[in-house]
Amino acid sequence: MLSKQQKLRWGILGCGRIANDFVMGLHLVAAARVVACASRSLEAAQAFGRMHDIPTCYESYEALCCDPNVDVIYVGTLHTLHYPHTLLALRHNKHVLVEKPMSMNQREAEEMIALAREKNLFLMEAMWTRFFPAVRQVRALLRDGVLGAVHAVKADMGFAFPANADRIWKRSLGGGGLLDIGIYPLAFVSMVFEGEEPENVHTVGATSADEGVDTYAVVTLQYSKNRFGTIQYSCLADFVEEVVIVGEKGTLRINAPAHVADRITLSLHGQPSQEMHFPHPAPAPSKSSFNFGGSVGFMYEGEAVTQCILNNERECSEYALSESLLLSRVMDSARKSLGVVYEADQPRSSL
Amino acid sequence: MLSKQQKLRWGILGCGRIANDFVMGLHLVAAARVVACASRSLEAAQAFGRMHDIPTCYESYEALCCDPNVDVIYVGTLHTLHYPHTLLALRHNKHVLVEKPMSMNQREAEEMIALAREKNLFLMEAMWTRFFPAVRQVRALLRDGVLGAVHAVKADMGFAFPANADRIWKRSLGGGGLLDIGIYPLAFVSMVFEGEEPENVHTVGATSADEGVDTYAVVTLQYSKNRFGTIQYSCLADFVEEVVIVGEKGTLRINAPAHVADRITLSLHGQPSQEMHFPHPAPAPSKSSFNFGGSVGFMYEGEAVTQCILNNERECSEYALSESLLLSRVMDSARKSLGVVYEADQPRSSL
Repeated sequence: MLSKQQKLRWGILGCGRIANDFVMGLHLVAAARVVACASRSLEAAQAFGRMHDIPTCYESYEALCCDPNVDVIYVGTLHTLHYPHTLLALRHNKHVLVEKPMSMNQREAEEMIALAREKNLFLMEAMWTRFFPAVRQVRALLRDGVLGAVHAVKADMGFAFPANADRIWKRSLGGGGLLDIGIYPLAFVSMVFEGEEPENVHTVGATSADEGVDTYAVVTLQYSKNRFGTIQYSCLADFVEEVVIVGEKGTLRINAPAHVADRITLSLHGQPSQEMHFPHPAPAPSKSSFNFGGSVGFMYEGEAVTQCILNNERECSEYALSESLLLSRVMDSARKSLGVVYEADQPRSSL
Repeated sequence: MLSKQQKLRWGILGCGRIANDFVMGLHLVAAARVVACASRSLEAAQAFGRMHDIPTCYESYEALCCDPNVDVIYVGTLHTLHYPHTLLALRHNKHVLVEKPMSMNQREAEEMIALAREKNLFLMEAMWTRFFPAVRQVRALLRDGVLGAVHAVKADMGFAFPANADRIWKRSLGGGGLLDIGIYPLAFVSMVFEGEEPENVHTVGATSADEGVDTYAVVTLQYSKNRFGTIQYSCLADFVEEVVIVGEKGTLRINAPAHVADRITLSLHGQPSQEMHFPHPAPAPSKSSFNFGGSVGFMYEGEAVTQCILNNERECSEYALSESLLLSRVMDSARKSLGVVYEADQPRSSL
């Protein structure tokens, strides 16, 4: 068991662009220390290690997972590899934070969660949006009933991905918009309705002619009592990326770009709108630079996970595994409507 | 034939709250004159006439339609009566501006349009949003290609209608959100895609337990080339009511409240957002007051229709009858998905 005085020792599995940003965020977390990283090639791991002052570099993910000095593994590989790499880490008794989407489908998510529970290890899908102070403030306002009964939530995300962005356009790499960006607005809807199971999920969208990955979609989640949430995403255009929550007493908006929110706006009927600002922290000095806007906000998630594990918690109440499972179910349903099928959806061969 | 020097003589059929606002708007149109009005009771017509300085008041709609001094009839009665009252006026050789929705369903709209064409009379559904300078500027910007290819449009409208607002909650009065407010965001989507026929229309929503009228819905219109429009409406909550048009080069927003727009915002990639203001005119002095916010903007529509008729046009190019027909088809399809059926949808009895 870890003591609270100890620093939590992180290992980084996959040294790509998102891992770069995550580690830079983690550098602001006092109780965290990055002790090792692994890539498919030693050169890549060493380059990453030099960039981020990580003492130990592995050319094998298994070697990283065997390192007794590592407490928790951050899985930052491709979507399609989240499942095998998370299982690998859990089997080596490491806690895991796995990038979103945690898996390609519900079946994988269930297996990952079952193994974490069996081994009594921490597991979380890296829904880092959930930990931004602006978003925490939204949850606090909703809990306080500031909007009264919530009736509707809208959330959107869209990027004009370039034609050469293989990861998004190739089915074999887990491409398509839903798993990559659609999951963000879905998680916002789920957040507002506190992980409640929707009564219906309806999806409308389109897939690419060549690879059959989803290019855009509109997903409507229907809840009891006339409550609903609607998300839109697109890989073809830059959307505004806002979350609008409409209640009995007014509207609460997570201003764009909502997935790295630093501003929310509360508009209650008959009152002037109130804007609340939650500036991101200044980045730590680094030899590297961020690949994605707002990535310094990884520190909020890094801090939350670090504290959970140091507190001997096995999941994080701010983003419970039941909610990851719900999203995986919703995404499976949406993909079924769209006709997007991945390798991972095929019946598993007996190995 | 009317000469351009002449004033167009308007008759008002129905003296309700919306007719009050329309006449107040029309008072700002120099080429228009309101010469007569009719209500179901003489007292109501006379009260309306006194309020708006209308010289002739009728207690019968037919009497109004027979008045040789009337050139054009504004039909401002209940939704369910738009069809019979429009036919009545057309049969008496009057031009007609009929409140939105022009009819309860596509079949009625087709008959109304066929009769107007047969009699060579002007007919328009009163989609007054279309004539606001802010909205005309949006169309001009889109025509100039300022956004490049348009990918998506979102529009919404929602009001927390009180429980005693019979018109919205009673099926016999043409209740439900789609015909009353949902038509506005639908017309915005149709405007952006220039009346193009969508490839698919998908509707998700709910109906009231007692009367079976639609309480909320999300309608997605899918067009070729990955283009889509999404509308949301609700009779249960006050929505922000914006229109967001996302294109290749940026975003164009019709700011709330979009159905009486006075402000638009153009945000092109890499450029600061540009807000454009189109203040409404000052109302003419009146013994009455407006029932609905922004109603002075009826003058834009009143001016457009007045000029069309004085120019001997039989429909208005800014809001063609083909587009009304398209919306009636889309709304029929949406109602079918929702299970909302009106008396007007029943097979017509042979009279």
